[in-house]
Amino acid sequence: MTPVQRAQLALLLEVAGTPKPGNVDRQREYAVLRFEHFLAGAVGSTPGLRLAANPAFGLGLAFETAVRGMSRQEGGNTQFGALLLLVPLVRATVTGPLHPTTVRDVVTETTVGDAVAFYRAFDHVDVAVGDPPAGLEDLDIRAGARARQAVLDHGLSWYGIMQASAEVDGVAREWTTGFERTFDAADRLYAREGSVLDREAGVFLELLAEEPDTFVEKQHDAATAAWATEQARRVRDGDRDVDGLAEEFVTKEINPGTTADLIAGGVYVALARGLVV
Amino acid sequence: MTPVQRAQLALLLEVAGTPKPGNVDRQREYAVLRFEHFLAGAVGSTPGLRLAANPAFGLGLAFETAVRGMSRQEGGNTQFGALLLLVPLVRATVTGPLHPTTVRDVVTETTVGDAVAFYRAFDHVDVAVGDPPAGLEDLDIRAGARARQAVLDHGLSWYGIMQASAEVDGVAREWTTGFERTFDAADRLYAREGSVLDREAGVFLELLAEEPDTFVEKQHDAATAAWATEQARRVRDGDRDVDGLAEEFVTKEINPGTTADLIAGGVYVALARGLVV
Repeated sequence: MTPVQRAQLALLLEVAGTPKPGNVDRQREYAVLRFEHFLAGAVGSTPGLRLAANPAFGLGLAFETAVRGMSRQEGGNTQFGALLLLVPLVRATVTGPLHPTTVRDVVTETTVGDAVAFYRAFDHVDVAVGDPPAGLEDLDIRAGARARQAVLDHGLSWYGIMQASAEVDGVAREWTTGFERTFDAADRLYAREGSVLDREAGVFLELLAEEPDTFVEKQHDAATAAWATEQARRVRDGDRDVDGLAEEFVTKEINPGTTADLIAGGVYVALARGLVV
Repeated sequence: MTPVQRAQLALLLEVAGTPKPGNVDRQREYAVLRFEHFLAGAVGSTPGLRLAANPAFGLGLAFETAVRGMSRQEGGNTQFGALLLLVPLVRATVTGPLHPTTVRDVVTETTVGDAVAFYRAFDHVDVAVGDPPAGLEDLDIRAGARARQAVLDHGLSWYGIMQASAEVDGVAREWTTGFERTFDAADRLYAREGSVLDREAGVFLELLAEEPDTFVEKQHDAATAAWATEQARRVRDGDRDVDGLAEEFVTKEINPGTTADLIAGGVYVALARGLVV
């Protein structure tokens, strides 16, 4: 299996893993964001993933291409965060070996041009983001390609942009920590027993129980994210039923998407290490 | 979306569509043949689908490559029949326009070399097949590559091989009829309302109600296939509950796989005609 196929399979296995409370999975979905949108998103991202697997192309262009292809379905943003992990992981696999230090090299070596492409990616799909950090108001990511000149003026690399968001965004934080939780998720997925989809459900719950999900923070607030993590902890510790939690999260539209992104990245690494489907 | 992506998405949407009584879908699976095996099969078939999209490669080689990639998961045969429809459909799309007459040209123009590659495909995965027709015992498909000389001696094209099975195999029959039921399924999928996955469930039931599934005939017998079709008719006519039927089929291991293959082909054609996910 090529790195591109592995990344595609990681996207598919992520959305199929159930129960992952609050996220679209095999059993649950939202009225406008449905299972089939994730299937189409995974297939659509392939051309971008292929660029990621070819070091002749800039990483930002690979990401933007993946997001553009992903967005060609009616559900909206399905896998933006997952691709933000997978694109550097695929690149690290081909410049490899796949390891925290090679992924760290891949992301720290990104350029201002990659940052511009990253901004362009936001033109293809609505992504939940917060306000820009103080002093960087003209770098509001929601401006997409219109922020091009500001990005060039600031001279920040894509890595620099992600550093500025690391405090509030769990995926950006992965970029600054050598993909620490991603590799940790991979170890746990690999170590567990049972089908890949069951392993995912277990690891998802552990990750959410350990750290509040920054996507929930953005969509709701810090208190909601803390509450969600507390509930995941109760399920993990056997004090609450997982299906009840899944129902409650869907009803309250609490969607721990960052934790799901970490699962997608973790599945990719676990597959690369020999996890068998 | 390229023809290759469309074929991949058709494989994924096929297995996701639920309920499709007796088949692995989003809600139901067998202990050894599970949902994730179909995801891996769809991803694995991509290199073969890419050869199908390139007329420089023989159609048989494209099919064999697709099956080899598909088989690299632990579930066994997931999408052999679906690929037997999708590979010619992809080729017809690029030699196009996609239409019954172009698909008919694609399959009738296959060679003895394609037939040899088709036989090789059986070495990659266990496929349920019946005994060879009288007088063609040395062409037993279960011999795989070992039948090479016999195939060459008989001088039968891949199309000729499929013609010999058309009476007992619903997929082979598509080859000899200009993919009649496939295009019909596409029309019905396109005409219905609702999500793609719901449309699939409805069309699956109609197709099964109209014609006994040849895969069920091979795995069980003609009486079982006739009974299964009678049950599908009762559900279609509102005299039976579809979920009850789905449970009963799984318990009895009645797996109308040929009807599912027609859905995969039909989804491909419907997507090509503009069906939106």
